[in-house]
Amino acid sequence: MTQPILLTEKEVEQLRKEVGTDSLMGRTIEANCKELEAFMRLPLDVPGHGEAGGYEHNRHKQNYTYMNLAGRLFLITQEEKYAQFVKDLLAIYAEKYLTFDFHVQKNTNPTGRLFHQILNEHCWLMFTSLAYSCVASTMTEQERTAVVERIFEPMLEMFTVKYGHDFDRIHNHGIWAVAAVGICGLAIGKREYLDMSVYGLDRNDTGGFLAQISQLFAPSGYYMEGPYYHRYAIRPLCVFAEVIHRHMPEIDIYNYKGKVIGNTVQALLATAYPNGEFPALNDASRTMGIRDAGVQVAVSLYSKHYGSQGNGGSQEHKGLDDNILGMAKIQNSVWMHACGLELSKAYEQATAEREIGLPFFPSVELNEGPQGNNGAQGFIRMQDKSGDVSQLVMNYGQHGMGHGNFDTLGITYFNRGQEVLREYGFCRWVNVEPKFGGRYLDENKSYARQTIAHNAVTMDEQCQNGFDVERADSVHGLPHFFQVEEDQIKGMSAFANDHYPNTDMQRSVFMLNLDGFEAPLLLDLYRLKADGEHQYDYSHQYAGQIVRTNFEYQTETELNTLGSDFGYQHLWKVATGKAQNSALVSWLQNNTYYTWLGTSTNDDNEVIFTRTGANDPSFNLRSEPAFMLRSKGESTLFASVLETHGYFNEEFEQSVNARGQVKDIRVVGKTQVGSVIEVETATSLITLMVSNVFGANEQTPHQVDTNGKTYSWTGFYSLEVTETESKTSEQEK
Amino acid sequence: MTQPILLTEKEVEQLRKEVGTDSLMGRTIEANCKELEAFMRLPLDVPGHGEAGGYEHNRHKQNYTYMNLAGRLFLITQEEKYAQFVKDLLAIYAEKYLTFDFHVQKNTNPTGRLFHQILNEHCWLMFTSLAYSCVASTMTEQERTAVVERIFEPMLEMFTVKYGHDFDRIHNHGIWAVAAVGICGLAIGKREYLDMSVYGLDRNDTGGFLAQISQLFAPSGYYMEGPYYHRYAIRPLCVFAEVIHRHMPEIDIYNYKGKVIGNTVQALLATAYPNGEFPALNDASRTMGIRDAGVQVAVSLYSKHYGSQGNGGSQEHKGLDDNILGMAKIQNSVWMHACGLELSKAYEQATAEREIGLPFFPSVELNEGPQGNNGAQGFIRMQDKSGDVSQLVMNYGQHGMGHGNFDTLGITYFNRGQEVLREYGFCRWVNVEPKFGGRYLDENKSYARQTIAHNAVTMDEQCQNGFDVERADSVHGLPHFFQVEEDQIKGMSAFANDHYPNTDMQRSVFMLNLDGFEAPLLLDLYRLKADGEHQYDYSHQYAGQIVRTNFEYQTETELNTLGSDFGYQHLWKVATGKAQNSALVSWLQNNTYYTWLGTSTNDDNEVIFTRTGANDPSFNLRSEPAFMLRSKGESTLFASVLETHGYFNEEFEQSVNARGQVKDIRVVGKTQVGSVIEVETATSLITLMVSNVFGANEQTPHQVDTNGKTYSWTGFYSLEVTETESKTSEQEK
Repeated sequence: MTQPILLTEKEVEQLRKEVGTDSLMGRTIEANCKELEAFMRLPLDVPGHGEAGGYEHNRHKQNYTYMNLAGRLFLITQEEKYAQFVKDLLAIYAEKYLTFDFHVQKNTNPTGRLFHQILNEHCWLMFTSLAYSCVASTMTEQERTAVVERIFEPMLEMFTVKYGHDFDRIHNHGIWAVAAVGICGLAIGKREYLDMSVYGLDRNDTGGFLAQISQLFAPSGYYMEGPYYHRYAIRPLCVFAEVIHRHMPEIDIYNYKGKVIGNTVQALLATAYPNGEFPALNDASRTMGIRDAGVQVAVSLYSKHYGSQGNGGSQEHKGLDDNILGMAKIQNSVWMHACGLELSKAYEQATAEREIGLPFFPSVELNEGPQGNNGAQGFIRMQDKSGDVSQLVMNYGQHGMGHGNFDTLGITYFNRGQEVLREYGFCRWVNVEPKFGGRYLDENKSYARQTIAHNAVTMDEQCQNGFDVERADSVHGLPHFFQVEEDQIKGMSAFANDHYPNTDMQRSVFMLNLDGFEAPLLLDLYRLKADGEHQYDYSHQYAGQIVRTNFEYQTETELNTLGSDFGYQHLWKVATGKAQNSALVSWLQNNTYYTWLGTSTNDDNEVIFTRTGANDPSFNLRSEPAFMLRSKGESTLFASVLETHGYFNEEFEQSVNARGQVKDIRVVGKTQVGSVIEVETATSLITLMVSNVFGANEQTPHQVDTNGKTYSWTGFYSLEVTETESKTSEQEK
Repeated sequence: MTQPILLTEKEVEQLRKEVGTDSLMGRTIEANCKELEAFMRLPLDVPGHGEAGGYEHNRHKQNYTYMNLAGRLFLITQEEKYAQFVKDLLAIYAEKYLTFDFHVQKNTNPTGRLFHQILNEHCWLMFTSLAYSCVASTMTEQERTAVVERIFEPMLEMFTVKYGHDFDRIHNHGIWAVAAVGICGLAIGKREYLDMSVYGLDRNDTGGFLAQISQLFAPSGYYMEGPYYHRYAIRPLCVFAEVIHRHMPEIDIYNYKGKVIGNTVQALLATAYPNGEFPALNDASRTMGIRDAGVQVAVSLYSKHYGSQGNGGSQEHKGLDDNILGMAKIQNSVWMHACGLELSKAYEQATAEREIGLPFFPSVELNEGPQGNNGAQGFIRMQDKSGDVSQLVMNYGQHGMGHGNFDTLGITYFNRGQEVLREYGFCRWVNVEPKFGGRYLDENKSYARQTIAHNAVTMDEQCQNGFDVERADSVHGLPHFFQVEEDQIKGMSAFANDHYPNTDMQRSVFMLNLDGFEAPLLLDLYRLKADGEHQYDYSHQYAGQIVRTNFEYQTETELNTLGSDFGYQHLWKVATGKAQNSALVSWLQNNTYYTWLGTSTNDDNEVIFTRTGANDPSFNLRSEPAFMLRSKGESTLFASVLETHGYFNEEFEQSVNARGQVKDIRVVGKTQVGSVIEVETATSLITLMVSNVFGANEQTPHQVDTNGKTYSWTGFYSLEVTETESKTSEQEK
């Protein structure tokens, strides 16, 4: 007789004790009951084919989502009606499923009988099999036979035979496929499907769950398509791992391949911004975050199986437990499972003793590639005195395959609850029927993935790798340093020498924590070296209102596009101004002022203000502003500083420190060996010397001679801060 | 010996009992202590002259704000350090005040020694006098003398002699002046200043507090400059009323002139959107709301002195108390005064018994003009099944003087926590130094106050009254009906026949509560009659992303302005399309879909999509979209319907009901007597007949013959709803 696949009787009893309590698990159960009951008040419906993102699609998705809840809630609460709901709905599916033909294929994805792509049908099978396993013991033989013969077996046949070529491949969709098939096999007592899912159809390293988890992630645990796609795969990955843990203990799945499961969960969580949202690395949603149900499963599973091992091996930061608890606090929910109960209890215990704050994950560099040597993604975090966390993200790793943005050396920056240097995100309205069924829109390629849409430098109005995915997949960034040990300065630097023809690029970004500043300063040095004369656009995607500049600019009386291709055709040229020495652009984003000062080593710099929306015949783009510093020459070094300052509240009519303290930025030295910049603030002179020597290490001596002055230092960089004025007198002014 | 002006010893004792409790008052005291102590940790500073909105301005404002808190907190908590803070700061002011010269005058406002306009110096004096009255008994004779002779007396002299001509005028600024002077007079034992403030310098009806409160407000309590300016005046109005209540009981201030104080507080609150924000009637902030400190004082005072009288006299709605409590819930704070204690106790009592929801004020028409016959402002509210309140606002009253927008018959619409048909608000960044010191910007006149910036009809690309303030002040809207008794339909209608040359205009707006719809439908009939051929732009200010239309449109390959004057010079023409019969425009604003269908009785209608930002040389405008239906002819009737539907959540990748149910809108009849429109939905046909007869009443018979069909009804309007399809089948589809 089929038993619940993921829960033992004893675990169910433990969960039952949480009903009605105020623990995270108690609240989860209550919220799930409420949602389920609201859905159960609607008439049962198993609709036929419909539009992508439309009612039919959503209904099937809701059906499996609520069957999955109802199965477990039946066990936990012993409410018969929940089991009945699953059985009634399954009976309708059994009656109708084989009467539905396969969808007409509209893109490269194979189609199912319920959904326009089998990916969704995998989801349906995984969740429904779990639900079935919870209620099967209450079903008659006849009821079970109908479900097995008229749904499950035809689906298994479809996935492993009809679409067998596509079944167990090394791809995030493949994880859904094997999890669904393996779990269904267990549910109907055909363990051969479980074996097939775990070891692959061919029982070698080319397919199946073990091959997938061995090969999909870099040694750091990073998934090359980025956190948005990672979090989509993490749910079947975790659910199936837990199934294997229980039903194939011989694999010792949680210790498999150096704890790859725990490692990759940790890597996913380590990318999140302080508010729990994932940076939109590659063409991703801007709003996906750790509250996603899959990430809830992952955090719960991690707590149970890896919770006591500390922070992924790092000796520096012991904060893991509080960070996991901080994530649970944002999630305000746990996986309704024994793993979630472990987290719920840990949270209860911890909050009785102390305040659990928002997570403050340590800075981390996540390497890319099967051996971890295809570059990396860098995440640096710094906390200011108020507790606010600034996070800097730089991409110097691999191209994210079909979802990849062409933005190697691109950065994003986040603080005070908002992304400041912003990622546009994908061009797509997920599940919105009138917007192409929620699929990717043309502008995803023509704008969102182009280099100019990012906080990077675009050369000659071209995209990196000429927007050639295959070419981009074959190259990667070259890490130079990632140093996050000091409190006053944390920084990273990398090269990208294969992304524009005959051009070497290096970007070095730092956060500085200086006395007298409210928030970290962001320092950025972007160095380019090419043959012949080129145009470099050093662009910054911001949000909000321009408050002031230190140069004259002219707004256009009619708007034209800034260029004709590689994303430039979507940019209106709004205003331009000649930059004298350093250009200052200050803006207000919600309650915070930001002041940017930038310069380049070439003369004749120009600041261009743009806005997206040109050549957008179906209003698919959001109207968003950006500015760029345009410089021309054989080589150039851009240097900029971004200050976060002040406070504005329109409702309470408050404005404080609208101008900030940074006064100027200058490049004072630039050789093959190093770059030296100075930043002048109201009270200090900051000198930063950065190594440009690929292959340098912490012992490498550097020397830059410039204008009769010699700068020398050892290692990757050196920072000097000289006070120029008494801070006390400034504060008292 | 000076005693606290606003608190008796017994009241202080009552307040003391709240310290450390979780009541609204307890929380208020705790929050105030925390804020005050944070400020007290800074060095004391009394700076000299500075930029408007700058450090010096803010510091003086903070100084009086925190002295005002410290005075009362000293009494309540008996912490000597709070009194000492006031005394120390006053001593520095006494030393420095007369050494400051008057500011250099930069606009028409007289300047003070601390601030660039005496309005702010009035604020300083009012709050500081109150603070002084709380601590004077702990000061030495010498300390008191210094403060009185070197600050208070020179200020009183400045306000009543040097600027005597400007002292007690009938203007919202005048209330600050008389409150400051009257309270200071009491504080230093010179009651003549109190008399002067209450009765005016000339002791006739031309000045002073009693004349002000008698003449500034319409009988409805509405203040013609709108809620934003009203809430600014409400604070000194309430504070001074309470002072008069205590020190001149013979005036019986709370019953004065038909309870004008309570009446005008009630009117202010009755304008607020369901989330507590004030509609930006006239050139106001979009974010000002009832959490403003002045409104907190007003709500507390109202609770104490008018709380038991029911809803401003209306017999229909007994909900006042819960609405006031709902406001207190949003404010999460009370006035730190005996009045606030009354509210805090009422709230405590009520919440022990029942859930206090958000306020749901009844629909209300607030008349304008000294006799209430200069038109009105209409506010209609309707609650949907989920409890969400939709609010419709129409301006058919007076021009708001110097702050007036040229938008008679303009509407705004709010639901699901957001303004849907939007008001741009003023063009100004309050207190932001680099943005012209936070003052009004040029674009306030050239764009924000123009008719085209509103949800109205602009004729021939001209502003109403040719943007002539004096002309606009001399005319007003003509109310036709305001009917809010029925559950299924609530509506209002008005004429504006003096706002465009030789043109009569009538707008009739309705909210419909129909079975099968998630939210009310907004129906709008805008009728214009003029001589000769004209162009009418029926414009809609929205926010968010266009999702679909039912007509082809062409986006521009280069952007030009839509016109050259009256605000059109600031609009980029983004796209245009020919409308066939009814035009459908659907957009997504945050989590909600909106679908608008509009038509006019002329052929050759065109939909134009615009975006603000042209001719904006200093980035003073926000970039915001709008669309308009353009129609040409001698006369026209625009009719539109706006449906609120569905749900979108990008984070959770949910989209429900993205298309809505309204299919078409048609004008089927249009005569001098009435207008008849039909709205076709997925399940019904809605017919609405509206009276166009000025002076009609509820008994007036109306008949419209059209295309061989006769529509007849009695009274202002008639609604018929016919089901055309079974709703059950639709829901099950």
